[in-house]
Amino acid sequence: MTTSSQSAALRIASAYHRAWTGGDLDGALAHVAEDIVCRAPGGDITGRESYRGYLGDFARIMTGLTDVAAFGDQEHALLFYYPHTPTTSTAPAAEHFTVHDGKIVESRLVFDRLSFGAPQQ
Amino acid sequence: MTTSSQSAALRIASAYHRAWTGGDLDGALAHVAEDIVCRAPGGDITGRESYRGYLGDFARIMTGLTDVAAFGDQEHALLFYYPHTPTTSTAPAAEHFTVHDGKIVESRLVFDRLSFGAPQQ
Repeated sequence: MTTSSQSAALRIASAYHRAWTGGDLDGALAHVAEDIVCRAPGGDITGRESYRGYLGDFARIMTGLTDVAAFGDQEHALLFYYPHTPTTSTAPAAEHFTVHDGKIVESRLVFDRLSFGAPQQ
Repeated sequence: MTTSSQSAALRIASAYHRAWTGGDLDGALAHVAEDIVCRAPGGDITGRESYRGYLGDFARIMTGLTDVAAFGDQEHALLFYYPHTPTTSTAPAAEHFTVHDGKIVESRLVFDRLSFGAPQQ
Protein backbone atom coordinates (compact mmCIF):
# COMPACT_ATOMS: atom_id res chain seq x y z
CA MET A 1 0.00 0.00 0.00
CA THR A 2 1.11 3.53 -0.70
CA THR A 3 1.53 5.69 2.38
CA SER A 4 2.89 9.16 2.77
CA SER A 5 5.05 10.09 5.70
CA GLN A 6 2.75 10.04 8.70
CA SER A 7 0.80 13.21 9.26
CA ALA A 8 -1.35 14.16 12.22
CA ALA A 9 -4.57 13.83 10.22
CA LEU A 10 -3.47 10.60 8.57
CA ARG A 11 -2.77 9.00 11.95
CA ILE A 12 -6.35 9.76 13.03
CA ALA A 13 -7.91 8.70 9.73
CA SER A 14 -5.90 5.47 9.63
CA ALA A 15 -6.90 4.55 13.17
CA TYR A 16 -10.53 5.25 12.31
CA HIS A 17 -10.25 3.20 9.12
CA ARG A 18 -8.59 0.21 10.81
CA ALA A 19 -11.23 0.23 13.52
CA TRP A 20 -14.41 0.29 11.46
CA THR A 21 -13.14 -2.02 8.75
CA GLY A 22 -12.14 -4.42 11.53
CA GLY A 23 -15.62 -4.36 13.02
CA ASP A 24 -14.86 -2.00 15.93
CA LEU A 25 -17.53 0.63 15.38
CA ASP A 26 -17.12 2.25 18.80
CA GLY A 27 -13.37 2.44 18.32
CA ALA A 28 -13.90 4.14 14.97
CA LEU A 29 -16.43 6.63 16.30
CA ALA A 30 -14.05 7.65 19.08
CA HIS A 31 -12.11 9.47 16.32
CA VAL A 32 -15.21 11.24 15.00
CA ALA A 33 -16.43 14.67 16.13
CA GLU A 34 -19.95 14.89 17.51
CA ASP A 35 -20.95 17.28 14.74
CA ILE A 36 -19.34 15.37 11.87
CA VAL A 37 -20.68 15.96 8.39
CA CYS A 38 -20.25 13.05 6.01
CA ARG A 39 -20.86 13.95 2.39
CA ALA A 40 -21.86 10.57 1.02
CA PRO A 41 -23.24 9.53 -2.37
CA GLY A 42 -26.90 10.51 -2.35
CA GLY A 43 -26.82 12.88 0.61
CA ASP A 44 -25.14 14.22 3.71
CA ILE A 45 -25.15 12.52 7.10
CA THR A 46 -24.88 14.97 9.98
CA GLY A 47 -23.96 14.15 13.57
CA ARG A 48 -22.13 11.20 15.10
CA GLU A 49 -25.23 9.22 16.01
CA SER A 50 -26.63 9.36 12.48
CA TYR A 51 -23.20 8.51 11.19
CA ARG A 52 -23.02 5.51 13.52
CA GLY A 53 -26.07 4.07 11.77
CA TYR A 54 -24.72 4.76 8.29
CA LEU A 55 -21.28 3.34 9.00
CA GLY A 56 -22.68 0.38 10.87
CA ASP A 57 -24.88 -0.60 7.94
CA PHE A 58 -21.86 -0.66 5.67
CA ALA A 59 -19.58 -2.38 8.16
CA ARG A 60 -22.08 -5.21 8.56
CA ILE A 61 -21.89 -6.20 4.89
CA MET A 62 -18.10 -6.00 4.65
CA THR A 63 -16.34 -9.30 4.10
CA GLY A 64 -12.81 -8.01 3.55
CA LEU A 65 -10.67 -5.07 2.54
CA THR A 66 -7.89 -4.20 0.13
CA ASP A 67 -6.10 -0.98 0.99
CA VAL A 68 -4.53 0.84 -1.95
CA ALA A 69 -3.29 4.23 -0.79
CA ALA A 70 -3.25 6.54 2.21
CA PHE A 71 -1.91 10.09 2.23
CA GLY A 72 -2.25 13.04 4.50
CA ASP A 73 -1.04 16.40 5.71
CA GLN A 74 -1.64 18.23 8.97
CA GLU A 75 -5.40 18.72 8.55
CA HIS A 76 -6.45 16.30 5.84
CA ALA A 77 -6.16 12.65 4.89
CA LEU A 78 -7.12 10.79 1.75
CA LEU A 79 -7.67 7.02 1.59
CA PHE A 80 -8.38 4.78 -1.41
CA TYR A 81 -9.39 1.19 -0.85
CA TYR A 82 -11.55 -1.69 -2.01
CA PRO A 83 -14.20 -2.74 0.49
CA HIS A 84 -15.18 -6.35 -0.14
CA THR A 85 -18.87 -7.19 0.05
CA PRO A 86 -20.89 -10.16 -1.16
CA THR A 87 -21.46 -8.15 -4.36
CA THR A 88 -17.97 -6.99 -5.29
CA SER A 89 -14.36 -6.78 -4.23
CA THR A 90 -13.25 -4.68 -7.22
CA ALA A 91 -15.24 -1.47 -6.69
CA PRO A 92 -13.16 1.15 -4.91
CA ALA A 93 -14.06 3.77 -2.34
CA ALA A 94 -12.21 6.96 -1.53
CA GLU A 95 -12.54 9.11 1.56
CA HIS A 96 -11.21 12.60 2.14
CA PHE A 97 -11.08 13.57 5.82
CA THR A 98 -10.75 16.91 7.54
CA VAL A 99 -9.42 16.63 11.09
CA HIS A 100 -9.65 19.35 13.75
CA ASP A 101 -8.40 18.97 17.32
CA GLY A 102 -7.78 15.26 16.82
CA LYS A 103 -11.29 14.45 15.55
CA ILE A 104 -12.72 13.87 12.10
CA VAL A 105 -15.08 16.79 11.44
CA GLU A 106 -15.81 16.13 7.77
CA SER A 107 -15.67 13.09 5.53
CA ARG A 108 -16.18 13.31 1.80
CA LEU A 109 -16.93 9.79 0.67
CA VAL A 110 -17.16 8.48 -2.86
CA PHE A 111 -18.11 5.06 -4.15
CA ASP A 112 -20.23 3.91 -7.06
CA ARG A 113 -23.57 2.89 -5.57
CA LEU A 114 -24.44 0.82 -8.64
CA SER A 115 -21.34 -1.34 -8.15
CA PHE A 116 -22.43 -2.15 -4.59
CA GLY A 117 -26.01 -3.04 -5.52
CA ALA A 118 -27.65 -6.18 -4.19
CA PRO A 119 -26.18 -9.43 -5.49
CA GLN A 120 -28.18 -10.98 -8.29
CA GLN A 121 -30.08 -14.08 -7.20
CA MET B 1 -6.33 22.59 -2.16
CA THR B 2 -4.29 20.06 -0.25
CA THR B 3 -1.08 19.07 -1.96
CA SER B 4 1.78 16.93 -0.77
CA SER B 5 5.35 17.79 -1.55
CA GLN B 6 5.73 17.25 -5.26
CA SER B 7 6.50 13.71 -6.29
CA ALA B 8 7.47 12.37 -9.68
CA ALA B 9 4.14 10.61 -10.16
CA LEU B 10 2.14 13.56 -8.85
CA ARG B 11 3.80 15.89 -11.34
CA ILE B 12 2.67 13.64 -14.20
CA ALA B 13 -0.83 13.09 -12.80
CA SER B 14 -1.32 16.79 -12.12
CA ALA B 15 -0.24 17.75 -15.64
CA TYR B 16 -2.62 15.13 -17.04
CA HIS B 17 -5.44 16.39 -14.79
CA ARG B 18 -4.93 20.05 -15.67
CA ALA B 19 -4.89 19.21 -19.36
CA TRP B 20 -8.06 17.14 -19.67
CA THR B 21 -10.10 19.21 -17.25
CA GLY B 22 -9.03 22.25 -19.25
CA GLY B 23 -10.21 20.70 -22.51
CA ASP B 24 -6.77 19.70 -23.84
CA LEU B 25 -7.39 16.03 -24.53
CA ASP B 26 -4.24 15.55 -26.62
CA GLY B 27 -2.15 17.21 -23.93
CA ALA B 28 -3.63 14.87 -21.33
CA LEU B 29 -3.10 11.75 -23.42
CA ALA B 30 0.56 12.65 -23.93
CA HIS B 31 1.01 11.58 -20.29
CA VAL B 32 -0.78 8.26 -20.81
CA ALA B 33 0.92 4.98 -21.75
CA GLU B 34 -0.27 3.27 -24.92
CA ASP B 35 -1.35 0.21 -22.91
CA ILE B 36 -3.08 2.09 -20.09
CA VAL B 37 -5.69 0.23 -18.12
CA CYS B 38 -8.37 2.43 -16.57
CA ARG B 39 -10.47 0.66 -13.98
CA ALA B 40 -13.65 2.72 -14.19
CA PRO B 41 -17.07 2.23 -12.60
CA GLY B 42 -18.79 -0.45 -14.63
CA GLY B 43 -15.72 -1.83 -16.42
CA ASP B 44 -12.14 -1.49 -17.54
CA ILE B 45 -10.97 0.58 -20.48
CA THR B 46 -7.80 -0.78 -22.06
CA GLY B 47 -5.48 1.08 -24.42
CA ARG B 48 -4.96 4.76 -25.07
CA GLU B 49 -7.31 5.02 -28.03
CA SER B 50 -10.23 3.51 -26.13
CA TYR B 51 -9.35 5.71 -23.22
CA ARG B 52 -9.39 8.78 -25.48
CA GLY B 53 -13.02 8.08 -26.25
CA TYR B 54 -13.96 7.52 -22.62
CA LEU B 55 -12.16 10.59 -21.35
CA GLY B 56 -13.38 12.72 -24.23
CA ASP B 57 -17.00 11.86 -23.47
CA PHE B 58 -16.57 13.01 -19.90
CA ALA B 59 -14.55 16.10 -20.79
CA ARG B 60 -17.27 17.27 -23.16
CA ILE B 61 -19.90 17.49 -20.41
CA MET B 62 -17.64 19.20 -17.89
CA THR B 63 -18.58 22.75 -17.03
CA GLY B 64 -16.10 23.37 -14.22
CA LEU B 65 -13.91 21.82 -11.59
CA THR B 66 -13.24 22.07 -7.86
CA ASP B 67 -9.97 20.44 -6.83
CA VAL B 68 -9.87 19.16 -3.25
CA ALA B 69 -6.67 17.18 -2.72
CA ALA B 70 -3.65 15.83 -4.59
CA PHE B 71 -1.01 13.57 -3.09
CA GLY B 72 1.69 11.35 -4.49
CA ASP B 73 4.86 9.40 -4.05
CA GLN B 74 7.41 8.20 -6.57
CA GLU B 75 5.12 5.78 -8.44
CA HIS B 76 1.59 6.74 -7.44
CA ALA B 77 -0.67 9.75 -7.24
CA LEU B 78 -4.10 10.23 -5.76
CA LEU B 79 -6.47 13.06 -6.69
CA PHE B 80 -9.86 13.99 -5.22
CA TYR B 81 -11.98 16.59 -6.99
CA TYR B 82 -15.48 17.66 -7.96
CA PRO B 83 -16.10 17.66 -11.69
CA HIS B 84 -18.94 20.05 -12.49
CA THR B 85 -21.49 18.91 -15.03
CA PRO B 86 -24.97 20.14 -15.90
CA THR B 87 -26.24 17.55 -13.37
CA THR B 88 -24.08 18.19 -10.32
CA SER B 89 -21.12 20.07 -8.91
CA THR B 90 -21.19 18.30 -5.54
CA ALA B 91 -20.45 14.69 -6.53
CA PRO B 92 -16.75 13.91 -6.14
CA ALA B 93 -14.41 11.75 -8.15
CA ALA B 94 -11.15 10.18 -7.05
CA GLU B 95 -8.37 8.82 -9.22
CA HIS B 96 -5.43 6.69 -8.19
CA PHE B 97 -2.63 6.65 -10.77
CA THR B 98 0.33 4.35 -11.25
CA VAL B 99 3.14 5.96 -13.24
CA HIS B 100 6.00 4.07 -14.91
CA ASP B 101 8.71 5.72 -16.98
CA GLY B 102 6.90 9.04 -16.93
CA LYS B 103 3.59 7.70 -18.24
CA ILE B 104 0.33 6.76 -16.55
CA VAL B 105 -0.01 2.99 -16.92
CA GLU B 106 -3.02 2.47 -14.67
CA SER B 107 -5.84 4.65 -13.42
CA ARG B 108 -8.30 3.48 -10.83
CA LEU B 109 -11.25 5.81 -11.07
CA VAL B 110 -14.20 6.11 -8.74
CA PHE B 111 -17.31 8.25 -8.97
CA ASP B 112 -20.95 7.57 -8.24
CA ARG B 113 -22.61 6.99 -11.59
CA LEU B 114 -26.05 7.70 -10.15
CA SER B 115 -24.97 11.19 -9.09
CA PHE B 116 -23.91 11.98 -12.65
CA GLY B 117 -27.11 10.72 -14.25
CA ALA B 118 -28.95 12.75 -16.85
CA PRO B 119 -30.55 15.93 -15.54
CA GLN B 120 -34.26 15.60 -14.83
CA GLN B 121 -36.42 17.37 -17.39
